[in-house]
Amino acid sequence: MPSTNLTFSNRSEHRAWLATQAALPAGFRVGTTRFDFTPREAPKPAKMTLTLLALDRPTADFAAVFTKNAFPGAPVVIGRRRLEEPTLGAIIINNKISNVCAPGGVEASERICAETSRLLGLSAGHVLPSSTGVIGWGLPVDTMIAALPQAVSALAGPSVLPAAEGIVTTDLYPKVRRAAVGAGSIVGIAKGAGMIEPNLATMLVYLLTDVAVPRAELRAMLRRTIDDSFNSISVDSDTSTSDTVALVSSGRVPIGDLGEFERALQTVCRDLAEDIVRNGEGVRHVIRVSVQNAASPSLARALGKAIVNAPLFKCAVAGNDPNVGRLVQAIGKQVGAHGADTDLSRLRARMGGVEIFSGGVFQLNPAKETALVAHLRGAELYTSAPPKDGVFSAAIDFPPHERCVEIEVDVGNGTAAATVLGGDLTHEYVSENADYRS
Amino acid sequence: MPSTNLTFSNRSEHRAWLATQAALPAGFRVGTTRFDFTPREAPKPAKMTLTLLALDRPTADFAAVFTKNAFPGAPVVIGRRRLEEPTLGAIIINNKISNVCAPGGVEASERICAETSRLLGLSAGHVLPSSTGVIGWGLPVDTMIAALPQAVSALAGPSVLPAAEGIVTTDLYPKVRRAAVGAGSIVGIAKGAGMIEPNLATMLVYLLTDVAVPRAELRAMLRRTIDDSFNSISVDSDTSTSDTVALVSSGRVPIGDLGEFERALQTVCRDLAEDIVRNGEGVRHVIRVSVQNAASPSLARALGKAIVNAPLFKCAVAGNDPNVGRLVQAIGKQVGAHGADTDLSRLRARMGGVEIFSGGVFQLNPAKETALVAHLRGAELYTSAPPKDGVFSAAIDFPPHERCVEIEVDVGNGTAAATVLGGDLTHEYVSENADYRS
Repeated sequence: MPSTNLTFSNRSEHRAWLATQAALPAGFRVGTTRFDFTPREAPKPAKMTLTLLALDRPTADFAAVFTKNAFPGAPVVIGRRRLEEPTLGAIIINNKISNVCAPGGVEASERICAETSRLLGLSAGHVLPSSTGVIGWGLPVDTMIAALPQAVSALAGPSVLPAAEGIVTTDLYPKVRRAAVGAGSIVGIAKGAGMIEPNLATMLVYLLTDVAVPRAELRAMLRRTIDDSFNSISVDSDTSTSDTVALVSSGRVPIGDLGEFERALQTVCRDLAEDIVRNGEGVRHVIRVSVQNAASPSLARALGKAIVNAPLFKCAVAGNDPNVGRLVQAIGKQVGAHGADTDLSRLRARMGGVEIFSGGVFQLNPAKETALVAHLRGAELYTSAPPKDGVFSAAIDFPPHERCVEIEVDVGNGTAAATVLGGDLTHEYVSENADYRS
Repeated sequence: MPSTNLTFSNRSEHRAWLATQAALPAGFRVGTTRFDFTPREAPKPAKMTLTLLALDRPTADFAAVFTKNAFPGAPVVIGRRRLEEPTLGAIIINNKISNVCAPGGVEASERICAETSRLLGLSAGHVLPSSTGVIGWGLPVDTMIAALPQAVSALAGPSVLPAAEGIVTTDLYPKVRRAAVGAGSIVGIAKGAGMIEPNLATMLVYLLTDVAVPRAELRAMLRRTIDDSFNSISVDSDTSTSDTVALVSSGRVPIGDLGEFERALQTVCRDLAEDIVRNGEGVRHVIRVSVQNAASPSLARALGKAIVNAPLFKCAVAGNDPNVGRLVQAIGKQVGAHGADTDLSRLRARMGGVEIFSGGVFQLNPAKETALVAHLRGAELYTSAPPKDGVFSAAIDFPPHERCVEIEVDVGNGTAAATVLGGDLTHEYVSENADYRS
């Protein structure tokens, strides 16, 4: 996947590179504000950041896709309605509380949109809300409305970085990717580190462009693009109730070649999707599964997902243990449960370029074991450090490299292919999630 | 589920209770032997136990169900053939290596069966093999054959406990359950702690009875019983390539009431299934999800499975954190992906008897939060101890109690029900599996 092969040795180097990606396309400004509040369901002080993405003038050319979770957050319910509006003028995003199935949640989000519209001089309904964080709690609406004017007065260019930083929750670092398209550009930001196995859409992703792509084309391209990007990743197999990918054009730069725009959009989405996995909760190895010669694209993707979601295989990768038996178990589980008519007799599997399975049997020996361990170690993002006060935490706040544990599965009975990305299962994931709210 | 409400304060108390369960039904003997060997794929000394379950005379009345994984182990391939044989005389079980897709695996298992037959004076093909352990490695056949005579000469009664101990891998303690049926009994033993989300059958489970139930009834009853027992549990959502449940009658005690036998079989299977979850790898909380009023039994079970397999919810339970948002996320993920026509507007959910969700919104407040934390703490099996040399291990080798985290989901639009058991996701699970083989 990734269009780059970057390495960074510290946070400053990574930040310097992010700055090269972060120039806002013409016609957009961003503003953020951060404040204290106390959730009513579990009274204990907390901090929230409000992030505002504003267009200089409302646009008809916007697209969005949302989670398929049957309990969508209030902002997703509202977002689906916004797709019917003639124009969009701004996006208002909060972290810390996701506003999912909270009593009065839709009304709360609408009040925040209304106040944002009023401050920006927009029509009501031309603001898209997004929320991420704890599921089940209610938004502190009054506190948020009191803080909104600061976000509005902070609105500025030329960098999208304040927004990329404002929307994070458990992310270790902000995620920004760009691509040039003729005289214009596409710039995307993403947050998301846990509860990530998107279904149609994922996490919070905002794609801004100044290239004038009409609404209908924008929406069709976004739908086509997400299957091979955000729908092909899984950190932990959970599906967020808030997943949102929005694509907005300010229309400032005339479109040249639609195909060039779509390819640039694919690059930005794939790179951001991989960034999300690499910065997934507790992820110390990114696992890339390339499935070839499957009977259908859906089977290819399902096999890839089965591998990156198999807890025992994920743990083995965390320990740099080439327990390829668990990998084949995952394929067999998926086929046994959902594709019993699939012929697996020609299946071949490789890890790190080393053949581990073919002709129905494992192809293992001590020399291969040594090579596989070396491959796993080479793909490790950081070494797990001993816990402090019982809690494991990541030793890095930047992505040191873009290497992956490379798995190739050749099913041998079709022509379809898919590439799926996932992460290992580590002590850092458990520490992060055994007491995330407190 | 469980038919008992046991508590134990140490290993000796638990062992004393196991002894009360362990009397072999008439007509069976068990023998084990333990020895050193070196796997050829990763040369490093290892230990294996061979466990032999022998009938005093071969029986026509036996049943077995096996994994649905599409890469079944060689013993499963052979086991399916054995179902066609007129009689069964013995079961030979090894741990440490599961003999799955190893070159020459079927021939290796058949050689061990043939040698067992020869030593016991049986016809070839009347021995059922089972293997559990690392996937992908080959059995050390010559070493095993050299050790077999010791297992044969160890054959004895009156307790099944040596077999329950012989078949374990990462289990913390042996698992035995019994039920009286008229003048006879059913005694079951089980091993299995990880790679456990059975599909049709599960793990290694051997159910021995002296009650004379004809082959056809025995097989039908086993099929009916496993759905509500072994098919309703999940430790980690992985499906072993070796899952086997065998039910063998020595026919010594005339059958009275077939219904009484089936109810006793259900009790033994449900209790063993719960024992397996309670002793699951790293499990510190057993989670019991009772789904009511669903449109179909399969939807009810799928919702229960979705909850006990949601990594973020499992982590929250591990931390005694009542993050019920993650619970509802899991329901929404399942329905969004697989049951989009399910009306969730009447869904109600309770944890520990406390209502947390109804009418489409969460029902939370600080007093409920306190009650939920107390419920989670009350269901904890042991407190996580700091890691030693970076490795977390269980502080217990007995089940201190049979309490669960109790979750009730009333879907509100049907009459079907299911109860599903699972475990939390802990540092102990990651430690166990990040370097299990070494």
